[in-house]
Amino acid sequence: MSKSKQQNEEHVIIVGVGLIGGSIAAAIRKRFPTTKITGIGRDANRLAGAKAAGLLTDFSTEISTEMLASSCVVVVCLPVHLIADFVKATVKIAQPGTLITDAGSVKSAVCEAVAADPDAGDYFVGAHPIAGGEQAGFEFADPDLFVDNVCVVTPVQGDSPSNDLIQRTTRFWQSLGCRIKTMTPIEHDRVLALTSHLPHVMAAVTTSAVGSDNLSFTGSGFRDTTRIAAGSPSLWKQILLCNTSEVIAAIDQAEKILGQYRKALQHEDGVQIEKLLNAAAECRSGLTRGITH
Amino acid sequence: MSKSKQQNEEHVIIVGVGLIGGSIAAAIRKRFPTTKITGIGRDANRLAGAKAAGLLTDFSTEISTEMLASSCVVVVCLPVHLIADFVKATVKIAQPGTLITDAGSVKSAVCEAVAADPDAGDYFVGAHPIAGGEQAGFEFADPDLFVDNVCVVTPVQGDSPSNDLIQRTTRFWQSLGCRIKTMTPIEHDRVLALTSHLPHVMAAVTTSAVGSDNLSFTGSGFRDTTRIAAGSPSLWKQILLCNTSEVIAAIDQAEKILGQYRKALQHEDGVQIEKLLNAAAECRSGLTRGITH
Repeated sequence: MSKSKQQNEEHVIIVGVGLIGGSIAAAIRKRFPTTKITGIGRDANRLAGAKAAGLLTDFSTEISTEMLASSCVVVVCLPVHLIADFVKATVKIAQPGTLITDAGSVKSAVCEAVAADPDAGDYFVGAHPIAGGEQAGFEFADPDLFVDNVCVVTPVQGDSPSNDLIQRTTRFWQSLGCRIKTMTPIEHDRVLALTSHLPHVMAAVTTSAVGSDNLSFTGSGFRDTTRIAAGSPSLWKQILLCNTSEVIAAIDQAEKILGQYRKALQHEDGVQIEKLLNAAAECRSGLTRGITH
Repeated sequence: MSKSKQQNEEHVIIVGVGLIGGSIAAAIRKRFPTTKITGIGRDANRLAGAKAAGLLTDFSTEISTEMLASSCVVVVCLPVHLIADFVKATVKIAQPGTLITDAGSVKSAVCEAVAADPDAGDYFVGAHPIAGGEQAGFEFADPDLFVDNVCVVTPVQGDSPSNDLIQRTTRFWQSLGCRIKTMTPIEHDRVLALTSHLPHVMAAVTTSAVGSDNLSFTGSGFRDTTRIAAGSPSLWKQILLCNTSEVIAAIDQAEKILGQYRKALQHEDGVQIEKLLNAAAECRSGLTRGITH
């Protein structure tokens, strides 16, 4: 194991033990079996289940000052619209040695709201591990969910956290297997609007355009293309609402390209259609070939 | 095996032994091992490979009058823009007892071009088994590719083939495991523009909107949503060109729904966003639950 993959955290507090929180716990368990893992959530029964499944050392329905008494990492894995308030409340009881990070898929709204608290920079560095799955719940936790996936670390510009805090955040996510990219929250949201939020909208649009009556005439292409459209509407509503201007810009970009297809079809312009399809196929093949660094 | 799944074809001639043609051969081999299967293609080496793989009884680079001397089914599995000419040439040498069908994913252009020949109705009934995969070539042939997938049979209205011919076509595709739906070529193209051609365009548009520079920030959602965008640009150009007006109508429909998302995001209208996402998720769940009949 390379030095960068080492972790010296003795205590990790995971807030929200679903697929992502549970996978963080599983990843730590697998790599650092002596690390203490506390789960925080609303439902004690669910948390007891996660403990029984071997993911947690202990759990509570509330985070407390006592938990933060010695050095620890608090990882907030809540739905995006709940992250900032939880982080701000935790900053109020944080101790020297407390690092707070999160796993939210939108960063500007979260990081700006948190940065409004002048003390937040001493404890919080935002992050977004780009990993997930269609299944919800800790039952689907995967200790290798993060391996070789990018985690974007998003320190806020200006009133920025110390380099030590950023490095500790980086080391933490690296220790779960992530490749780290550092970006501003705004840059993150612009890129993720394209790479994650737009695909969700496009999958939903394609599904609705087809409609229930035509489902028996779909094949594997439709099935793959629209799989994510079955994802939780309430969770995705919050993600889109937290990143409206960038998602609108991404939709504009998609509409522009869709218009190019439309025009080429109207003119029965085979050369242009193939050019458009070629550009997409070549780009997509980059992913298969692993040219993603 | 139910009566409807029985087949009494002694000789099947498969024109174009790629993934679909090869899978038809494999499906027949598995279910009706005594049926003679002749492969027709441009490349004798590839055909020899398909024979060596156990898919064909024999092969040739040309279809001949002798092959059609006794009762047989000719299944044309060529790219859509080549089907009509091949069918028309085969009609000229067809004998009583020859059935010609095809596997093209566009039907109006093919069926209309074929129906221009007054003799075609005696031999040809168009079809489209909705099945496929991302891999090309007979090496990926799957004897169960068609099982429980819909095959649309598209007799031409007006100068229509006899009921016997339609029934024989239906029986042939059923015997490979397909569920049969009968539609006019125009209706088929309208529905498939939505269920197959639009998803391809949307996957390509999403890929191009994201672009190569952002690929490392994609996750499994993007991966699934855009998988088919890596498909052959030249094949897909032909499919889209053979169905321009219906694909344009499908794009219009998608643009309309995309506009609804755009408007809801501009107004930060969470209720409307969730309503749109809910409609898509509910529709998509119908596929998972198997409500597709």
